[in-house]
Amino acid sequence: MFTTDDLCSLRWDAVSERVEIIDQTLLPHTLRWCHLESLQSYCHAISTMQVRGAPLIGITAAYGLAHALARDASNEALALASATLLATRPTAVNLRWALDEVGNAVRELAPSARPRAALEKAHALRDEDIANCERIGDNGLQLLRALKPGEPLNIMTHCNAGWLATIQWGTALAPVYKAHASGIPVHVWVSETRPRNQGTNLTAWELQRAGVPCTIVTDNSCGQLMRQGRVDCVIVGSDRTAANGDVCNKVGTYLKALAAHANGVPFYVALPESTIDWSCPGGDEIPIEERDESEILSIAGVDAAGDLLEVNLAASQSSALNPAFDVTPAELVGALITEYGNVEASEKGLQHLRSIATGA
Amino acid sequence: MFTTDDLCSLRWDAVSERVEIIDQTLLPHTLRWCHLESLQSYCHAISTMQVRGAPLIGITAAYGLAHALARDASNEALALASATLLATRPTAVNLRWALDEVGNAVRELAPSARPRAALEKAHALRDEDIANCERIGDNGLQLLRALKPGEPLNIMTHCNAGWLATIQWGTALAPVYKAHASGIPVHVWVSETRPRNQGTNLTAWELQRAGVPCTIVTDNSCGQLMRQGRVDCVIVGSDRTAANGDVCNKVGTYLKALAAHANGVPFYVALPESTIDWSCPGGDEIPIEERDESEILSIAGVDAAGDLLEVNLAASQSSALNPAFDVTPAELVGALITEYGNVEASEKGLQHLRSIATGA
Repeated sequence: MFTTDDLCSLRWDAVSERVEIIDQTLLPHTLRWCHLESLQSYCHAISTMQVRGAPLIGITAAYGLAHALARDASNEALALASATLLATRPTAVNLRWALDEVGNAVRELAPSARPRAALEKAHALRDEDIANCERIGDNGLQLLRALKPGEPLNIMTHCNAGWLATIQWGTALAPVYKAHASGIPVHVWVSETRPRNQGTNLTAWELQRAGVPCTIVTDNSCGQLMRQGRVDCVIVGSDRTAANGDVCNKVGTYLKALAAHANGVPFYVALPESTIDWSCPGGDEIPIEERDESEILSIAGVDAAGDLLEVNLAASQSSALNPAFDVTPAELVGALITEYGNVEASEKGLQHLRSIATGA
Repeated sequence: MFTTDDLCSLRWDAVSERVEIIDQTLLPHTLRWCHLESLQSYCHAISTMQVRGAPLIGITAAYGLAHALARDASNEALALASATLLATRPTAVNLRWALDEVGNAVRELAPSARPRAALEKAHALRDEDIANCERIGDNGLQLLRALKPGEPLNIMTHCNAGWLATIQWGTALAPVYKAHASGIPVHVWVSETRPRNQGTNLTAWELQRAGVPCTIVTDNSCGQLMRQGRVDCVIVGSDRTAANGDVCNKVGTYLKALAAHANGVPFYVALPESTIDWSCPGGDEIPIEERDESEILSIAGVDAAGDLLEVNLAASQSSALNPAFDVTPAELVGALITEYGNVEASEKGLQHLRSIATGA
């Protein structure tokens, strides 16, 4: 199964003292590791989705802030670098959380001590993310074990909330990997996740690398598969979860939750506690990022020669609207799977989680 | 507004005595009319979706049978040509209906009289389809007028059920065209309709040609748009409707119906009476066509030079499952809009419709 050196999305190159990331915009056709060399390259990596997934965005931003402080550790530089990184993606709450963690770790220190402390904090956040994801996997596995003991499981997921979205393990896919490792025959329905096709590009690719059987399906067919009894549960991640349990996640999550609810299919959301926005009372308060229409009107693929190229899908005068996220009301969510345990998606459930997390 | 010569998907070329169709697999990038020259070319046109949409499939098949009878009008040829055409698409009930109509019109005639009678029947079915679609438009317009009098309307549709899916007007889009013509400011949310993108390729293209404002959206975003109150109603077509009102239509329809129901958005299905399968008691009895996985794993578009080409989207070892239709339970359908009027999607509503249709 996974080791620290295996199947990870971000690594620290101790020789060059640089972070390396997989450029996820090139997957599944090309696997390329890239060094991040400047604050600008960190911001570019996040905003263009070379790295994506709420946990990975957070850790990348933490390293980005450490990188900036190694060049200028003044208060002004700290504030500017934080603001610049924060502006890259509006929805993922982990971004703000990770920047706050690093900022709080260095703010009281003399500037000369800040670079090392910031880097150590980034490393600590990375290690914590790996440990949290593994705990999410173990906690989710308990739910999977109870579904259909002794039988194969067909698990549906959306977008990518696997090790490519975190550092290792993933959130939604961590229970899948744990089940696979424990000998449960699992098969994953991978929704392609238009418009950026993270299901096809990332989830199918990372499941294949881990040896987990999977089948790509259109987002459109997910309801029909549930009606036909071919889905035992749905597990997705979250970009931000409100204090009442409303879940903001990749657009299309809501439709799958409605179909799961209508067909009695358990619908789980796996997330680290850092994804919960305690200041946000409900999902309707969460800003929904609208991305460029070109993500819908054109697409990249490889031609017969294996060359990556972009083709236009629509008539040239067409226009499109591209909200990147949606909100799933808490009442459609069967359970939140977190590193602290599984709780009900409700204000009460989240308060219980918070009391465990804070040791109260 | 529309005339017989304008905005149609199939026409009779009286000079060559051939049917001409728009090759819809080339849209939206290339508009090409093709003559159908042989029974094989008719079957090819239907099975490869050069023509698609339940009503257009039916009319095309009727002309195909007339074409075959012009070459061999024996009972054996009639049976063989009917069976060959019927096998091209398993879900659309209009295909069987249209073949039965032509078969019944010629079966009692001497073989020498059959070719002319078959062609006249095909012409009659075409004219009837145009008239039925226009009536569907008028009946649907009554529902649209009642929604938000005096205000602009945002109407969502799925797949293509416009004049490209029929001969003229369309089914789901006929009320939209009628509203547009009557001065109601309408805007259409066009769901791209993966995997074949009939929304992007066909619906956006045909709306643009008719001057109706529209915006392409991912199938995934349709629930979020409804949650945000940006959709006043949904109108879709149907490939087959069961006697209890369950609607089989392009995959993804069911998810939109669930979202509409959850958000109090009226969900209408527009269809000619010929789409109702009176022998089918409920939607679960309808066979769901599974099409090739290549429709999901690769896609066609035009490159910067305007050349049409196919690109692979997924890693080479990926597999996909591609059900082409889904079933929307009758209770999620607000009304069935037909050429005979608007009825409730229920056994009672359909029996009422049948009594009007048969003049009982």
